Amino acid sequence: MAAIPLMLDLKNKKAVVVGGGKIAERRVRTLLSSEADIKVISPALTSSLTTLYQDGKLDWHEKSFSAEDLQNAFLIVAATNDSEVNRAIIESAPQNVLLNSVEDAAAGNIQFPTQFSRGKLSISVSTNGSSPILAAKIKRDLAVQYDEKYEDYLDFLFEARQLIKRSSLSTEKKKQWLRRLVDEDHFHPEDQEFVLEQLNNIQ
Amino acid sequence: MAAIPLMLDLKNKKAVVVGGGKIAERRVRTLLSSEADIKVISPALTSSLTTLYQDGKLDWHEKSFSAEDLQNAFLIVAATNDSEVNRAIIESAPQNVLLNSVEDAAAGNIQFPTQFSRGKLSISVSTNGSSPILAAKIKRDLAVQYDEKYEDYLDFLFEARQLIKRSSLSTEKKKQWLRRLVDEDHFHPEDQEFVLEQLNNIQ
Repeated sequence: MAAIPLMLDLKNKKAVVVGGGKIAERRVRTLLSSEADIKVISPALTSSLTTLYQDGKLDWHEKSFSAEDLQNAFLIVAATNDSEVNRAIIESAPQNVLLNSVEDAAAGNIQFPTQFSRGKLSISVSTNGSSPILAAKIKRDLAVQYDEKYEDYLDFLFEARQLIKRSSLSTEKKKQWLRRLVDEDHFHPEDQEFVLEQLNNIQ
Repeated sequence: MAAIPLMLDLKNKKAVVVGGGKIAERRVRTLLSSEADIKVISPALTSSLTTLYQDGKLDWHEKSFSAEDLQNAFLIVAATNDSEVNRAIIESAPQNVLLNSVEDAAAGNIQFPTQFSRGKLSISVSTNGSSPILAAKIKRDLAVQYDEKYEDYLDFLFEARQLIKRSSLSTEKKKQWLRRLVDEDHFHPEDQEFVLEQLNNIQ
């Protein structure tokens, strides 16, 4: 599997998760963060999944898997604890659908990398199956290095970038501003406010 | 766009890239690394794309875009320098296809994060449009931190993991080995050989 990293927007896309255990739960949380329209197929759910269902965050079909469950799916997760069922899901999946096979990654075409977010900043790590433990370790190290202050920092950069793009500055000046913005490490709120004020003045 | 990171395997999947300029070229290189079956639609190509075409790495339709070009596509990249054509591509794209819109990211459902690889290790950074310059800076910093030695290290971890999984060790022992493998930082080739020898002996 020679996989490439992508950012995928699942807003209003139909995702079918087959399985109601711990791994299914983790996948559901990831898919929810991208506002997918989620259907879970499973005779039983973890208590967290049950809560999500009760809160109307997902659709639950309280049943065993059958091929019709995959109709119109944009993305499928095969995450039951039964190898035979997982194989049936893979065999029933339409050809061009996004398919995550938890038991045997190579049988699917997508994998969920280890990742963390700081607001708009997202860093993800994949070892392509070499070592999930190393991926988790690298992620932990990076989450310390790129800590909570990046959340506000990214919001600031986003706002400043919109102001720069909308301004009447020349293309060259815009580029200079965008570069300076990052070079100058504006991590302090007061500092950020000062820059935004400057940018508001040059509109 | 609330996008989530994914690893996508494009092996034998049909990718249509509309446009033949610098950005199209960058996308083609990324798609090639995942062994996609690539068709480029453009009246002209950059010299690098021309070379890739001559080397049989991609299929080139020397023409302007028309809706039929998207037939059976699994993934589409809209990367022409003409806003009207880019809009036409987006409008012609089938509903459930993966679509990267270079000019207006929000019009598509996938984006290509900034990323680097060290063999099987892949780290990717996205700022969800807040600051491509910051993403590039973080990537540069991480590429220094996770340097070339990770390439062999990941190959070693992969091989060791296969040996552990295939061994007759108990589940508990296997877990211990997998954890130790990472905790002990085996970056030196001799060290790696020694561990693999140990593992071969316990098969």
